[in-house]
Amino acid sequence: MSRTVYVNGQFVPEEDAKISVFDRGFLFADAVYEVTSVLGGKLIDFDGHAARLDRSLKELGMGMPMSRDELLEIHHRLVEANGIEDGLVYLQVTRGAADRDFAYPAEDTPQSVVLFTQSKPGLANSPQADQGIRVASLPDLRWDRRDIKTVQLLYPSMAKMEAKAKGADDAWMVEDGVVTEGTSNNAYIVKDGKIITRQLGTEILHGITRAAVLRFAREAQMKVEERTFTIEEAQAADEAFVTSASAFVMPVVEIDGEKLGDGTPGPVARRLREIYLEESRKAAI
Amino acid sequence: MSRTVYVNGQFVPEEDAKISVFDRGFLFADAVYEVTSVLGGKLIDFDGHAARLDRSLKELGMGMPMSRDELLEIHHRLVEANGIEDGLVYLQVTRGAADRDFAYPAEDTPQSVVLFTQSKPGLANSPQADQGIRVASLPDLRWDRRDIKTVQLLYPSMAKMEAKAKGADDAWMVEDGVVTEGTSNNAYIVKDGKIITRQLGTEILHGITRAAVLRFAREAQMKVEERTFTIEEAQAADEAFVTSASAFVMPVVEIDGEKLGDGTPGPVARRLREIYLEESRKAAI
Repeated sequence: MSRTVYVNGQFVPEEDAKISVFDRGFLFADAVYEVTSVLGGKLIDFDGHAARLDRSLKELGMGMPMSRDELLEIHHRLVEANGIEDGLVYLQVTRGAADRDFAYPAEDTPQSVVLFTQSKPGLANSPQADQGIRVASLPDLRWDRRDIKTVQLLYPSMAKMEAKAKGADDAWMVEDGVVTEGTSNNAYIVKDGKIITRQLGTEILHGITRAAVLRFAREAQMKVEERTFTIEEAQAADEAFVTSASAFVMPVVEIDGEKLGDGTPGPVARRLREIYLEESRKAAI
Repeated sequence: MSRTVYVNGQFVPEEDAKISVFDRGFLFADAVYEVTSVLGGKLIDFDGHAARLDRSLKELGMGMPMSRDELLEIHHRLVEANGIEDGLVYLQVTRGAADRDFAYPAEDTPQSVVLFTQSKPGLANSPQADQGIRVASLPDLRWDRRDIKTVQLLYPSMAKMEAKAKGADDAWMVEDGVVTEGTSNNAYIVKDGKIITRQLGTEILHGITRAAVLRFAREAQMKVEERTFTIEEAQAADEAFVTSASAFVMPVVEIDGEKLGDGTPGPVARRLREIYLEESRKAAI
């Protein structure tokens, strides 16, 4: 059975889900996106993603293509149409289609809006979360506004492939000697019970899951320090993990071939994953 | 009348020129492109562009989607179908359509190939070339592999808009205190008869027009020095210009509000433009 996909006001079978070759998302990567997880048929932190979408669009001189409620309704319709129990909803907004020019098209050019689902049965019970993942460090070659969630994802994609070629599951990117983040997740280490993660800035994505996890950590009286760290400090940490909308809290057990602790997921990462999933399910809509 | 566009083996009216929303060019900017100028109905430096396309694809672990001859035939068919006397042919190749994943899809995933034309009557006789353009300096925030001609063009697009907002025609991007290049062209200054332009590297595009212009300059016994320069050195230069496939050699007469010389196009830029257009027309196919 073919998925139902949303493209510019219409719900269509995925074979018919097409956009113009003149779309600026295709020609200039002039587009932003969000990925919202679905657990038990409900959306995790939809409002966080909607707020970040609004911010990304504003940073690029665009507005929201529709209201929060309309966006939510499309998410719900796709989840229902595609029978998504666990999985995710992908959303992309572009500056629209116009004859190719580096200069932006006329202000009244309609934005393009695309949403589709991916079914991931058992998303919250991934065996990977029990084993932990291995990461390899790679230089961070991305552009300098990583706080805007654009579709300029070629380098993260290349880095993911390079990490796999090195026998790892993902990459941690390094710039000026310190870790920025993973290819599609924020990076953390834990030392002496303290959670350390890079402070927000233009160098990293302002993770929706990151914000929630740090809030839950503080509510649980865990110590949190927002600062940069090196690969060497990470390798000497007690544990490490990454967060993202679709991986939630995922333990990291090996960095550049160096096992952390006994090479199994640590207690802080495991506890944060539990709290995050529990609280997120409660608040899901 | 609608243009004829080439999309994955078919020649279609532009309204029907569409690609899947699952295309990696749309979702990941996992795509490269070339722009070839047309003068008098013939292609300028087609083989240079085909060779660079091959290189860009190789750098991303892809091959050419078809032979040089097949590519040339599509270019010719579009030029003819759309009655292009002066203008350009745009070509984009992506890693193809696949369910969204940072990891590359299976090796046998067909690449997507899109070509379209833009008619630009009098392209070689632009009044801008007689007046020269004004540039504004902006920080270079792009990724670090600018030698690969990817569609990650959001920042050049933003910089172009910012330059226009400052009353300039284009931006010269600056990194580590020195000029990298323009938003879609290579940058040059001329001092005491010597042409100075940044050496090739991963920091700039390896311009096809740049290569031709430097060759013609050397053949004409002009002195050429390939090295970095600052905005201040550029402002104190005798003249400046940019080169690109569609602007050819375009004089720059003002940098950050500072006029160069008497504020009109200089003799070296004018002479190089003449030579380039003359030689390119002779070799056009």
